Amino acid sequence: MNNKRVENIIKNMNNKGIKQLIITSPSSIYYILGVWIEPGERLMALYINSNGTIKFFANELFALDSNLGVDLVLHKDGDDSIEPIASICEDNTVFGVDKTWPSHFLITLMEKKPNLKFVNASPVIDEVRMIKDENEIGLLKEASIVNDKVMKDLINSLSKEKSEKTVADNMMSLYKKYGTEEFSFPPIVAYGANAASPHHDCDSTFLKKGDCIILDIGGKTKGYCSDMTRTVFYGEPSLESRKVYNTVLESNLAGIKAIKPGVKLCDIDKASRDVIDNAGYGKYYTHRTGHNIGIEDHEYPSVGSTDEEIAKPGMVFSIEPGIYIPGKVGVRIEDLVLVTETGCKVLNAYPKELKIIE
Amino acid sequence: MNNKRVENIIKNMNNKGIKQLIITSPSSIYYILGVWIEPGERLMALYINSNGTIKFFANELFALDSNLGVDLVLHKDGDDSIEPIASICEDNTVFGVDKTWPSHFLITLMEKKPNLKFVNASPVIDEVRMIKDENEIGLLKEASIVNDKVMKDLINSLSKEKSEKTVADNMMSLYKKYGTEEFSFPPIVAYGANAASPHHDCDSTFLKKGDCIILDIGGKTKGYCSDMTRTVFYGEPSLESRKVYNTVLESNLAGIKAIKPGVKLCDIDKASRDVIDNAGYGKYYTHRTGHNIGIEDHEYPSVGSTDEEIAKPGMVFSIEPGIYIPGKVGVRIEDLVLVTETGCKVLNAYPKELKIIE
Repeated sequence: MNNKRVENIIKNMNNKGIKQLIITSPSSIYYILGVWIEPGERLMALYINSNGTIKFFANELFALDSNLGVDLVLHKDGDDSIEPIASICEDNTVFGVDKTWPSHFLITLMEKKPNLKFVNASPVIDEVRMIKDENEIGLLKEASIVNDKVMKDLINSLSKEKSEKTVADNMMSLYKKYGTEEFSFPPIVAYGANAASPHHDCDSTFLKKGDCIILDIGGKTKGYCSDMTRTVFYGEPSLESRKVYNTVLESNLAGIKAIKPGVKLCDIDKASRDVIDNAGYGKYYTHRTGHNIGIEDHEYPSVGSTDEEIAKPGMVFSIEPGIYIPGKVGVRIEDLVLVTETGCKVLNAYPKELKIIE
Repeated sequence: MNNKRVENIIKNMNNKGIKQLIITSPSSIYYILGVWIEPGERLMALYINSNGTIKFFANELFALDSNLGVDLVLHKDGDDSIEPIASICEDNTVFGVDKTWPSHFLITLMEKKPNLKFVNASPVIDEVRMIKDENEIGLLKEASIVNDKVMKDLINSLSKEKSEKTVADNMMSLYKKYGTEEFSFPPIVAYGANAASPHHDCDSTFLKKGDCIILDIGGKTKGYCSDMTRTVFYGEPSLESRKVYNTVLESNLAGIKAIKPGVKLCDIDKASRDVIDNAGYGKYYTHRTGHNIGIEDHEYPSVGSTDEEIAKPGMVFSIEPGIYIPGKVGVRIEDLVLVTETGCKVLNAYPKELKIIE
């Protein structure tokens, strides 16, 4: 168990007046205990009381290591798995529940403990996970170094003989070469007009001269995610495509330049968005500028027009502006950045100037 | 919308004293509305009031067809998605909630509607889905016919040059040949001692003479699952392996023979289990005899030693006894069966006599 992380969570429980809570999402359990468990339909809950009592309620089928550094309370299939939690709950307090806990567990606990006040406790955990510690920062850097290498191999491997699907199907072998065996998310490979749909599913489209090629890829290295997008062209792009590309690149750089501690995330979004608006492409920029990342590809908070959260050292998020003109062209350029004491460090090094492959 | 299925659900709501409920699992939504939606973190809820009011609350990003035959209530990202549900809830009644609904939605609804009594409503839906209608029976039969064909091709393709993983990696191409493009579950291919672990992950093991080969496979055809296991041998099996095989086959047949309307599922489990117990292998039969199946691979209820539910015409479940002797051999033989008015119909036709491949 990572005691420092638990300490931060308890501090935040006290800030928010939550006396006791349970954490149930596999990613938050991994964050605290260092093991990834998919409980399926079974119960898994890490109970934390702000007085320091911590217990991990789990099914014996999870075959947990007894050296996790936490009090284990095991149940079997067929047992009442909620009773052990109910039996240690402090009465008449605020009880925080992780947001995705299946409702039937909560309903059973409510029936056993009618005098608790149940609230959504995910913000308590999200706000702690939002600030990465040194170990996490090291892992996120490592994951992005792998992603840079994969992007290089990937772009070198493109050719008119390969459909989007062929390129995507070959992606895992590129990651495996660098020791990464899991995607952060299904890779996006989109040619030409397909690229104008921000979350296009790879299909059997082949390259035509002048096509843009969006490559949005990420792998999970030692439990932490990478996520980067580059857009290249197959043969000479049209004048409009060049203009779109340069606008997105300028937007990406403006977003990055705006990052320093104390700035609101919505203002970083604005810095990036203004460039695209001013170039007259505002209505073709259809998504937020970025999202935080860590154990999960998308973590709290987002970098969007309504995100009032403030940039703090240790945050890692994406800056990924895009312009999507239906039927014509799509361009997105995405880097991960780490907020530092004085500004930010970009975690991706693969070049961003307009590149044409033949 | 399938009105007959909704009618059955309302009938069961009345049986259980549930005035209103919401259904949120993608499989139950598919069962009623015929569309499969993965809502991710967004809200999706089909509200049913036993007075006949039905509304489907969904995010506009799901891009739903307006011809679903149900009142659509759409929200956008950023809206309070629970308020529209709260605004139509009838006060002071029992409100049923689908078991896997993320807790934060329930907590928000509880805060808005403190005078409702919330209960787990999944049994209401599970009990209706448990009895397949004619259309579903047709689809389940069709899925099992495909599975029989795949099993035949699969067994013909086995050879000592192919590792478990190679065989598993090739499986989708066998299904695609028959128009099935999705697995019901990741296929299990296990050779020799690996077969003694009932849920072994396919690895780079190759065949040795005398090895058993467990093949547990299923595909999703037009939304409905198949699931079948056969065990064959590579070269002459040992005398003990033969005895184990014949015992499991006898157990499979005894289970099937015990099926008719009115029999408790635990008694079907017992009929199957007694054969293995009597042969002295009881401690190596480490799981339940079967599970119901339909839109999902595992549906309510199970066929196990504590399942008091009674067999009824229209139920479809697996009979899959097995014997697993650690380090030596594993044998499982699984068929899907449909309970009929007088007994049952086995949906799988691939032969079950002991087969040796060279």
